[in-house]
Amino acid sequence: MRATILHAARDIRLDDVSDPQLHDDGDAIVRVVASCVCGSDLWPYRGINEVNEPQRIGHEFVGIVEQVGASVQTVKVGDFVIAPFMFSDNTCALCVRGVHTSCVQGGFWGYADHKGHPVDGGQGEVVRVPVADGTLVATPSQPSQELIPHLLTLSDVFPTGHHAAVSAGVTAGSTVAVVGDGAVGLSAILAAKRLGAGKVIAMSRHKDRQRLATEFGADEVVAERGKEGAAAVREIFDGIGADYVLECVGTSDSMKQAIQSVRPGGRVGYVGVPHDVQLNIPAMFSRNVGIAGGVAPVRAYIDDILPDVLNGTVLPGKVFDLTVPLDQVAQAYQAMDERTAIKSMLTV
Amino acid sequence: MRATILHAARDIRLDDVSDPQLHDDGDAIVRVVASCVCGSDLWPYRGINEVNEPQRIGHEFVGIVEQVGASVQTVKVGDFVIAPFMFSDNTCALCVRGVHTSCVQGGFWGYADHKGHPVDGGQGEVVRVPVADGTLVATPSQPSQELIPHLLTLSDVFPTGHHAAVSAGVTAGSTVAVVGDGAVGLSAILAAKRLGAGKVIAMSRHKDRQRLATEFGADEVVAERGKEGAAAVREIFDGIGADYVLECVGTSDSMKQAIQSVRPGGRVGYVGVPHDVQLNIPAMFSRNVGIAGGVAPVRAYIDDILPDVLNGTVLPGKVFDLTVPLDQVAQAYQAMDERTAIKSMLTV
Repeated sequence: MRATILHAARDIRLDDVSDPQLHDDGDAIVRVVASCVCGSDLWPYRGINEVNEPQRIGHEFVGIVEQVGASVQTVKVGDFVIAPFMFSDNTCALCVRGVHTSCVQGGFWGYADHKGHPVDGGQGEVVRVPVADGTLVATPSQPSQELIPHLLTLSDVFPTGHHAAVSAGVTAGSTVAVVGDGAVGLSAILAAKRLGAGKVIAMSRHKDRQRLATEFGADEVVAERGKEGAAAVREIFDGIGADYVLECVGTSDSMKQAIQSVRPGGRVGYVGVPHDVQLNIPAMFSRNVGIAGGVAPVRAYIDDILPDVLNGTVLPGKVFDLTVPLDQVAQAYQAMDERTAIKSMLTV
Repeated sequence: MRATILHAARDIRLDDVSDPQLHDDGDAIVRVVASCVCGSDLWPYRGINEVNEPQRIGHEFVGIVEQVGASVQTVKVGDFVIAPFMFSDNTCALCVRGVHTSCVQGGFWGYADHKGHPVDGGQGEVVRVPVADGTLVATPSQPSQELIPHLLTLSDVFPTGHHAAVSAGVTAGSTVAVVGDGAVGLSAILAAKRLGAGKVIAMSRHKDRQRLATEFGADEVVAERGKEGAAAVREIFDGIGADYVLECVGTSDSMKQAIQSVRPGGRVGYVGVPHDVQLNIPAMFSRNVGIAGGVAPVRAYIDDILPDVLNGTVLPGKVFDLTVPLDQVAQAYQAMDERTAIKSMLTV
């Protein structure tokens, strides 16, 4: 089969690799229908995270089950399934507490499973799925072509935005500002609105992203950044700031902007993978600003969100503004790297 | 009247000062019945926070209303009142959101009010109280002598422990560990139990404090500190750690210990005034550990807690293990500095 391999910074290719095999009774083999590129894939692509050897890549995919191990019970051959961006058993002490990303049998696509066997990346044709019963979520029936992008967002980007909102504690009628206009930030807007947030401010200075932010429910857009952006948010919210700020970038500047935008007693939900983030603890302490979030336990949220995707209440797949066949994976990365695409989908 | 003045590090005295006067229609004059020394008072006392000029000190007191300004409505002359450790109007946009410590008319005892007039410290005989309607809470009747220490804790230490528990999000049946065996940490144990926490671990290696921790409801005591202490907490809680950890010290070591003791997906509530605290954000992110807390909005909690104090459901005044007359204020500080007392009460 063919799978995407990152050979070095900006050298990404679809290569021939060996077909995955069932290793364990709990495994499944899934033929990928669609996958996509994540903002976090750009860190190694750009060489900011070092690439020491060629590595499989991609952690968001949907597909059809081709084979299952002897003990697999929750999915069967032929099912259309959503794969969260980490695999997990859904039964351990941490999964039952909703922290599937800390699962004792869990791990990342493209690395190794709990027993040390290599695991395929998601940007390929076929993937061996460890602990398939816990990991995969089957749709009740075969979805239409139109639904596939929306279902694909359940692998990562939409529930990651949702995690920012849940971690901050967004409640009905509350005020929210979102830092970051990438696919996660835009998803966080949609998620906050789905949770009943009152006024939501998108912080973005790009016309196309502002447009999608508004489609996703943003009530106002603030184009300024940094201190000026935070001042504009505070101004809109009674001079005190937003109840909740969703930080969807992961830099020191974006976190600072988030903390300056939130009101005393408010919370920052953060899901942008942090790179050299420092917090001003005394300032947070004096204003009673909390932060919560982290790597999103997507699996915990899919059962709740899936019905709203299936019935069209939310259309999170609108974040995909570029769709190319898997063999054009390099273009998919390049477009996101150059910010000509918000998020790239790969069809197999 | 006489009031406590910190002249320099470890030079603290009861001096003659001018009697406070009403400055504003919203002021009240309160004759202090009892006050106390806070762990945070030890920072300037020890010279760790610089003392550049003689300063009034003390921010926890209860007393009897002697005079009220023309517009004061919620308290009257003769009322027994509790003064939270910051004054606040209880009506501004931040007070109504429960963040009285960020009140637009608020401030600290011993400094100045919103209009720039000096405000007395709490460790004195008489105090001018700004925005008295918002600040003071009167008891329904004159309390007995036995009740006074318990009521005095509502100024700061008990609701500060409560704030750690509320900020972390302690719920009925949850698992909790408390870092810090000072008066705030001990109060946090009592507060967590009052909120219905299941198993609560006190982290303490001092026999007298371990005993009070147990009286306040701690189910187990861990004497180890740092990494070893955190490992012991994780061991007790299914190998994964506590749902909630209450950080009641404020040093880099105590915060590290708190974060290492909490389970993935758990929360740290922190109320120890932070001194040079650095957070390991990537470790928090990967384990979905949030932190929340800050300077406790005590006023927001008094109405809820007061009935339980009046009817004896909780006895938070047990944190006072030394009571001296106000003119022995220096001994009260020395005992806490040398850790021969958990918390010192001053009677007038």
